[in-house]
Amino acid sequence: MPAGEKNMDAMEVILTRRSIRKYVDKPIDDDILKKLINAGVSAPSAGNQQPWHFVVIDDQNIFDEILQFHPNAKMLKQCQKAILICSDLNLEKFKGYWILDCSAATQNILLAAHAMGIGSCWLGIYPRVERMKGIQKIFSMPENIIPFSLIALGYPDEKHGTVDRYEENRIHHNKW
Amino acid sequence: MPAGEKNMDAMEVILTRRSIRKYVDKPIDDDILKKLINAGVSAPSAGNQQPWHFVVIDDQNIFDEILQFHPNAKMLKQCQKAILICSDLNLEKFKGYWILDCSAATQNILLAAHAMGIGSCWLGIYPRVERMKGIQKIFSMPENIIPFSLIALGYPDEKHGTVDRYEENRIHHNKW
Repeated sequence: MPAGEKNMDAMEVILTRRSIRKYVDKPIDDDILKKLINAGVSAPSAGNQQPWHFVVIDDQNIFDEILQFHPNAKMLKQCQKAILICSDLNLEKFKGYWILDCSAATQNILLAAHAMGIGSCWLGIYPRVERMKGIQKIFSMPENIIPFSLIALGYPDEKHGTVDRYEENRIHHNKW
Repeated sequence: MPAGEKNMDAMEVILTRRSIRKYVDKPIDDDILKKLINAGVSAPSAGNQQPWHFVVIDDQNIFDEILQFHPNAKMLKQCQKAILICSDLNLEKFKGYWILDCSAATQNILLAAHAMGIGSCWLGIYPRVERMKGIQKIFSMPENIIPFSLIALGYPDEKHGTVDRYEENRIHHNKW
């Protein structure tokens, strides 16, 4: 197993993943990045339409441009890499489901990162029009490409305990 | 470890999860169901708004009613239980993000199920208005409650191999 890659129980990964916004100065290898994207494309999609594209970003100039219009993106100054998930509306077979597909792909990448000891944070792009337009402009994207989420990545420089979010009053049985 | 619960590597779970639509006649214990929902609420949500509710369904009459208007729900005739994820718009702090939040919660439950040897299938409710209205009617839900996804669950009676969905032409580096 490559250095830095932990073998972690799936349930533990799901229950202990937290947003990580502080990172140490340690590079993320290309093979790990490929595994993260492979986790992303392993998500289910409506009718298996797989509408996603992935833009790997590690150019600080691009991060600086994103910081101009994204109010919650401070961690981009410190992260090693980021993955921008986009949807290609031309690949859409079932209208409106690309949002769900790209969310599932994003969640898979967050979990895979945590499984490999990498901290991540889901930065919302969609549905904020000014952020979507800002990203489209940076990359001169065609109109059919919709930027959806930006995942900041880096080996963690902070640790969060697990939280119990289970609330009985949110659980119902055969009736509302 | 309880019977029927496998300890599975997180990356393996992410990469090998497939939609399962055929199930054996074996009950899903309540403690497992609680673990699945706990996986769901462990998903990230915008501003930690946690807008979700979970309706556990195992009443065949309800499944029959859903089958009246849902064209892809045949597996409900055979599944042991289903979890309906809904959003409470009154809990929404960041407009429009509940769709992403509920998608991430759904994906967590699919993965947790697979990790415990349970097959699952994500049945789309949102954004199909006729399905959302159909579900709201069955449960006489208040207007602020939006049915989002229905997850059919059961121990698998079919097996799918892994698929390689990684495509180099969907990966970009610092530019489109």
